[in-house]
Amino acid sequence: MNAPTPIAHVTPEVHLREVPAALLAALKDRFGAQFSEALAVREQHGRDESAFTTVPPPAAVVFAESTTDVQDAVKLCAQYKVPVIPFGVGSSLEGHLLAVQGGISLDVGRMNKVLSINAEDLTVTVQPGVTRKQLNEEVKSTGLFFPIDPGADASLGGMTATRASGTNAVRYGTMRENVLALEVVTARGEVVRTGTRAKKSSAGYDLTRLFVGSEGTLGVITEVTLRLYPLPEAVSAATCSFPTIADAVNTVIQIIQLGVPIARVELIDANTVGLVNRHSKLNLREQHMLLMEFHGSPAGVREQAETVQDIASEHQGAGFEWADTPEERTRLWTARHNAYFAAVQSKPGCRAISTDTCVPISRLADCLLDSVAEADATGIPYFLVGHVGDGNFHFGYLIDPDSAEERATAEALNHQLVARAIAMDGTCSGEHGVGLHKMGFLRDEAGEGAVQMMRTIKHALDPDNIMNPGKVFGA
Amino acid sequence: MNAPTPIAHVTPEVHLREVPAALLAALKDRFGAQFSEALAVREQHGRDESAFTTVPPPAAVVFAESTTDVQDAVKLCAQYKVPVIPFGVGSSLEGHLLAVQGGISLDVGRMNKVLSINAEDLTVTVQPGVTRKQLNEEVKSTGLFFPIDPGADASLGGMTATRASGTNAVRYGTMRENVLALEVVTARGEVVRTGTRAKKSSAGYDLTRLFVGSEGTLGVITEVTLRLYPLPEAVSAATCSFPTIADAVNTVIQIIQLGVPIARVELIDANTVGLVNRHSKLNLREQHMLLMEFHGSPAGVREQAETVQDIASEHQGAGFEWADTPEERTRLWTARHNAYFAAVQSKPGCRAISTDTCVPISRLADCLLDSVAEADATGIPYFLVGHVGDGNFHFGYLIDPDSAEERATAEALNHQLVARAIAMDGTCSGEHGVGLHKMGFLRDEAGEGAVQMMRTIKHALDPDNIMNPGKVFGA
Repeated sequence: MNAPTPIAHVTPEVHLREVPAALLAALKDRFGAQFSEALAVREQHGRDESAFTTVPPPAAVVFAESTTDVQDAVKLCAQYKVPVIPFGVGSSLEGHLLAVQGGISLDVGRMNKVLSINAEDLTVTVQPGVTRKQLNEEVKSTGLFFPIDPGADASLGGMTATRASGTNAVRYGTMRENVLALEVVTARGEVVRTGTRAKKSSAGYDLTRLFVGSEGTLGVITEVTLRLYPLPEAVSAATCSFPTIADAVNTVIQIIQLGVPIARVELIDANTVGLVNRHSKLNLREQHMLLMEFHGSPAGVREQAETVQDIASEHQGAGFEWADTPEERTRLWTARHNAYFAAVQSKPGCRAISTDTCVPISRLADCLLDSVAEADATGIPYFLVGHVGDGNFHFGYLIDPDSAEERATAEALNHQLVARAIAMDGTCSGEHGVGLHKMGFLRDEAGEGAVQMMRTIKHALDPDNIMNPGKVFGA
Repeated sequence: MNAPTPIAHVTPEVHLREVPAALLAALKDRFGAQFSEALAVREQHGRDESAFTTVPPPAAVVFAESTTDVQDAVKLCAQYKVPVIPFGVGSSLEGHLLAVQGGISLDVGRMNKVLSINAEDLTVTVQPGVTRKQLNEEVKSTGLFFPIDPGADASLGGMTATRASGTNAVRYGTMRENVLALEVVTARGEVVRTGTRAKKSSAGYDLTRLFVGSEGTLGVITEVTLRLYPLPEAVSAATCSFPTIADAVNTVIQIIQLGVPIARVELIDANTVGLVNRHSKLNLREQHMLLMEFHGSPAGVREQAETVQDIASEHQGAGFEWADTPEERTRLWTARHNAYFAAVQSKPGCRAISTDTCVPISRLADCLLDSVAEADATGIPYFLVGHVGDGNFHFGYLIDPDSAEERATAEALNHQLVARAIAMDGTCSGEHGVGLHKMGFLRDEAGEGAVQMMRTIKHALDPDNIMNPGKVFGA
């Protein structure tokens, strides 16, 4: 761990670069109705789900419908050295989409075709605007599914760019493990394929993994080849309540250490269970809760469930309730995914400042409990949910976006939490990415040498710094 | 797929760079007894297990014993712009270690300490010279193991550098999935940490994955943090014989498509079974064979085994034989791993030219059977083994290294096989890496744009081209 960084600026630094009228005219000429300078369109493309104060929107939006569209837009912007900010559905959380250096938003949402399903190979190739729910609808008839599930119905291009994960990652991995290959358009407008459909490869540098998590700063993702999985023969979900967060977390630690192949294991604290109950009209017991799911053969699921029940009992777990029908399960998981909205709507006008630390599993209880105590001491309202099987959890501190004091309290808590996670050999970001918000945290975590290596790669592949500039690392 | 490349040169291109006497003196001064210019030592460090004709050995060998040693050696070489070739145990297969541009071999074999075992987190951190067997010995008492198993008792630094995999990858993934973080020494002699012990992260570019598979061309790996797994409660191995290779392969395809979590599934063709029998004093039925292993709970293993037996029966599989004791299993897997030596020793004085293609599982039978027919038509002796669950297999064509004709026949077969695999959206290298041998194949597979991107990254991180130059991509 390095020297701690100052608390992140609540207003991002803005250094607008000139967008020449000639570029706007050329884009309009090339893209016609796929080009917009309307303020409402620009504003919608200049923000995300983060709690940042607004910055000026991009100068214009291009709606790409093909790889060639992306190439042409990038080439025109490159000619004028104007920033290009790729845009999927706008669900990112760390300010990734804010036009802090001006430029053009390149919306790939209309590139939303599933290009090929190779059910026999358990692979699928999609355009970047396909969302995860759409993908699962389109592959349903094959008996396969795509497990990565970050909550929001994000685009697969965006999920690739932020290295997203979510509730199923404990068993199926993250986008890092599930993207096989990409087609990308480079900062010079060239098309490059980063891999094949082979399940493994030792052929050269891992360009695929370099682009997974690059947050739009190295190029625009125009195709994504993903792994699919057979729908499990049996699925069972369960909730279990605990008197303390420590009991719940210690249950999880033991599940993981024993190698139980649990598919999902989520923590929801008692307060958040209450918010979820009121938002989703549920009657969950308002105690700290683990929400779990088991995938496998009927016998395998039974075996896992028995093991987990035994472990939970040793830690005061009680009130195991099973959801075996798809409808019950969908209701539970939808409620879990709506925790964010349940919390935000509980305090009208508020925004959530979300934390995203991830620590080695043995440190999870220490990291989480100390941070709960700190948050409670400030009196700030928050929700707490977590992909605890991976050591990843999220506080969402609910602030009045116009209150500098509340914002400062939340940022200070986040700062303390990140410092704690880094000291435990963990990371400031399990799944949301760096964006604008965590640039200082990344430096604390990785050290100047590693950040300088990232910068060197960025500069080599994008010498004019036009691809989503000002994100991930400072100048 | 791009225009096919000419058949690889059987003699690597050598462009020796000057190694100034002043550098040798400085290294000798700094490293004393850890420095050698003895011809035998240099020759041992100037070759690997590939079938390349020899090239002049490196000018000297430095035996590093610490990260500081590595830094100092690299800094001195950087000062004189002299190549540095990292060396583990010398088991690579594609000419990775040949000093085609001269320079210094940097042997990290003495950096062979397990630095920390975090059993509760299922992680371990090792120095790069620790071998996989040593690691498994040292973690045995924790009830954990490291599954990646490329056959040779390779060093973990070398396995990281070539993105190795092996027999367990079908269930546990490759080095790509199992390296959590690295410490590396850059081409300027700086120490950089590429990650943390968190199981997942979205914090910046994936430098870890960039170095995994970089074949020593971006820096020297000085520490490796790896995932460990709980030793399965039950393990069972089995062999099953098939009248045709097609039957065996179709069995595997169905196992994978059904999502059976098989731990290992290896193909050995009838001829190779014979070689293995004679080499390892076994009495395996001399038919095409699948060698399998199942990991899980006792009930889970039983369930997997029953499913697989049903599938095998549908494809004329017969003679299921079980190996339930650790001793029987070790005997079988040792025999499998010795297939290479069994084959090479069957033809005194020969070398094996090994293929390494990997294709999407649905194309495995087509790819493999056509290549068997081609090889049989030439009459060349070969062995055939494969990690078929991943779509990866190896022909080893046995040639007299002094016979230009045999070498040309083997290279032509390899060339046809690679072209076929690439046309099937597969890769020229599942696990051996590119080295010298597959530089043309990489270009065919990835395309000039992707190779140029790799070159750009290499040039940015190693502007004087001192880190294992002349490998992976041409100038």
